[in-house]
Amino acid sequence: MARRKSLTKPSFPTMQPICGVKLATVACGVAYKGRTDLMLVELQKGTQIAGVFTRSLTASAPVKWCRSILSGGKARAIVVNAGNANAFTGRAGDEIVRATASRAAEVIGCREKEVFVASTGVIGQTFSPKLIPGKIAGLHKRARADRWDEAARAIMTTDSVPKGVVRTAEIAGETVTINGIGKGTQMIHPDMATTLNFLFTDAEIPAHVLQKCLSYAADRSFNCITVEGDTSTSDSLFLCATGAAKHTRITDFRDPRLKDFRRALLEVCTGLSQAIVRDAEGGSRFVTLHVTGAASMQAARKIGRTIASATLFKVSMAETLPPWGRMIMAVGKSGERADRDRLAIDVGGLPVAREGAVIDGYDADGVAAHLKGAEIELSIDIGIGRGKATVWTCDRSKGYG
Amino acid sequence: MARRKSLTKPSFPTMQPICGVKLATVACGVAYKGRTDLMLVELQKGTQIAGVFTRSLTASAPVKWCRSILSGGKARAIVVNAGNANAFTGRAGDEIVRATASRAAEVIGCREKEVFVASTGVIGQTFSPKLIPGKIAGLHKRARADRWDEAARAIMTTDSVPKGVVRTAEIAGETVTINGIGKGTQMIHPDMATTLNFLFTDAEIPAHVLQKCLSYAADRSFNCITVEGDTSTSDSLFLCATGAAKHTRITDFRDPRLKDFRRALLEVCTGLSQAIVRDAEGGSRFVTLHVTGAASMQAARKIGRTIASATLFKVSMAETLPPWGRMIMAVGKSGERADRDRLAIDVGGLPVAREGAVIDGYDADGVAAHLKGAEIELSIDIGIGRGKATVWTCDRSKGYG
Repeated sequence: MARRKSLTKPSFPTMQPICGVKLATVACGVAYKGRTDLMLVELQKGTQIAGVFTRSLTASAPVKWCRSILSGGKARAIVVNAGNANAFTGRAGDEIVRATASRAAEVIGCREKEVFVASTGVIGQTFSPKLIPGKIAGLHKRARADRWDEAARAIMTTDSVPKGVVRTAEIAGETVTINGIGKGTQMIHPDMATTLNFLFTDAEIPAHVLQKCLSYAADRSFNCITVEGDTSTSDSLFLCATGAAKHTRITDFRDPRLKDFRRALLEVCTGLSQAIVRDAEGGSRFVTLHVTGAASMQAARKIGRTIASATLFKVSMAETLPPWGRMIMAVGKSGERADRDRLAIDVGGLPVAREGAVIDGYDADGVAAHLKGAEIELSIDIGIGRGKATVWTCDRSKGYG
Repeated sequence: MARRKSLTKPSFPTMQPICGVKLATVACGVAYKGRTDLMLVELQKGTQIAGVFTRSLTASAPVKWCRSILSGGKARAIVVNAGNANAFTGRAGDEIVRATASRAAEVIGCREKEVFVASTGVIGQTFSPKLIPGKIAGLHKRARADRWDEAARAIMTTDSVPKGVVRTAEIAGETVTINGIGKGTQMIHPDMATTLNFLFTDAEIPAHVLQKCLSYAADRSFNCITVEGDTSTSDSLFLCATGAAKHTRITDFRDPRLKDFRRALLEVCTGLSQAIVRDAEGGSRFVTLHVTGAASMQAARKIGRTIASATLFKVSMAETLPPWGRMIMAVGKSGERADRDRLAIDVGGLPVAREGAVIDGYDADGVAAHLKGAEIELSIDIGIGRGKATVWTCDRSKGYG
């Protein structure tokens, strides 16, 4: 059985400063020793913020706080700690978040509701509410515009590499930059797979438009990846726009001048979300799955993610076994409409099944060769509509839970 | 890390004949060599049948056939083959089922619509439609009342043991028997985990009442187990009542004379479904999870199965890690209502969490000792209602996909 050692991981890019954004990190010691685990991002006055959070009904204390203040649309700071998710921590967890926001507001000179908080790590353990606030003043003093790599490292848990993606875009003839950093842990981490992602741009876009841009991109990137199908209590994605760029004012999501920015934003989100999949421990193959012919885009994504997170499917990818039986199983399990007798499947561009049955004499050698590669490409047509989506996942070898 | 080798598997019980039921098996060679893989059950005239099938929208050809004839409520034969699921086989698959039913009807002297068919094994491979029909006459000739163990063996795929459960019950002073045989494969089987279960009783119960009895029992047994969370295209559960017993006629599901029968039926279903979990390859711990305080019984079952099928939860069971962070994650992911600040968790009867947070100074040694055992007992209270359910699963050690 052909098995590869691990996936190629993208290297951290050179990130230029974003006007209006300063960063600092420190070893705070909530859970780790001898490494940075606390990051402060300071944002200039007037920075607009958009956010997308886990839909979990047992969300962490930081997510609960961020959800409650997001409608304000303004941010002056983001405080992030790694090693403890501050989830399933009851009222004590809420107090930690409040103390953090309160202290940051005091130090920076803003309102508590302009301080966003994110945490990632172990669930169900509290820690002293003085630990993080005690470090804020020092972080504020040292915050600089060129600490992107350092920031990406401070938010890592079991990540093996820091993750970052940069894109530029034109808005009305003016070039703006999007810097994104993120982290994502693996399924066999002692507690919980969490993904946190922070995007910053100097574009001048009001929060309500920014939110639509972010939700649109998240639906086509983060919401299209799966590692083991387990939803974190802490997943958070932020996009902050400092407004330092000089382009003309944008007030509408559908404004054609936003087209290039939306393209760049989707590329940043896709890059970060794929980096998470490529850093999944035990993953040795990167799988791209195209779903077409579903009842809607939502249905296509649901089908795609049901296939991609199915244990038996993931093991078939690791073992280079024909996956179609397990793909069909997952289509049925997804609950979305499908026509059993119209399903079609391609593997690596080679037709394998048509009209709900395996093709007699399909190119078995070609398919087997493709399944042994590092990058697998699968397509499934559901046969009933025009909904389509692409999802990304990795295999799950027997050696990893 | 304490890891056990495998679960204790129940032995096959002594099964007495059920008046009106005869069985035969043969090596048909659809997929296996050197073992029996085809079973015929013949049922006396007037036998009533109830059935529960996978809700998969990509169900196998046999499931499609059985769904279409179940409303007739009458059965004279069940034909079951192992090694090929006859799923994702398009029209060719439908033809195999039709040829089988047609030949059995001819040999036995009944209508096609009284012949039920079930298949388990590989998905996406067709086989000659003459293979199974060619064996029916021989099976008919050799069918006998005492071949239960042999029948249970003929329907095995990667099962390591044949699975059967017997119970007796009183209906209006008369003793009736329920014989149940079943099979369930493991998650790393080269194609698909499938469970097929066949129950037979001499009770005289009309099909519409039988169906309610079976659905009620299935909801509290088969619908409460999970191995890896992947839904088969072929899951089928049948209950046949020959009516040979001499008790007074039953016409209503709520008839108090049915109480003891329903108890016995639930015990047979629970026994068979737990036997499937205990035979899961790679499982080393049997986990019983009680969910209380949910919005409804359905909500409690959904939460329980979401926890029990979560990869990270199953790995924590294998690694004897504290599972509560992963239980909370799964509650949030289930989509059912929950009060984050009222959640309570017990492990092995020991209180671990109350009011949405881990208890300071909980009995960590006692909990750790319980988690190292072979039989794990977990309870979670959702804190909002009176819905409750119990689900069963096994751990998933790193050594198995």
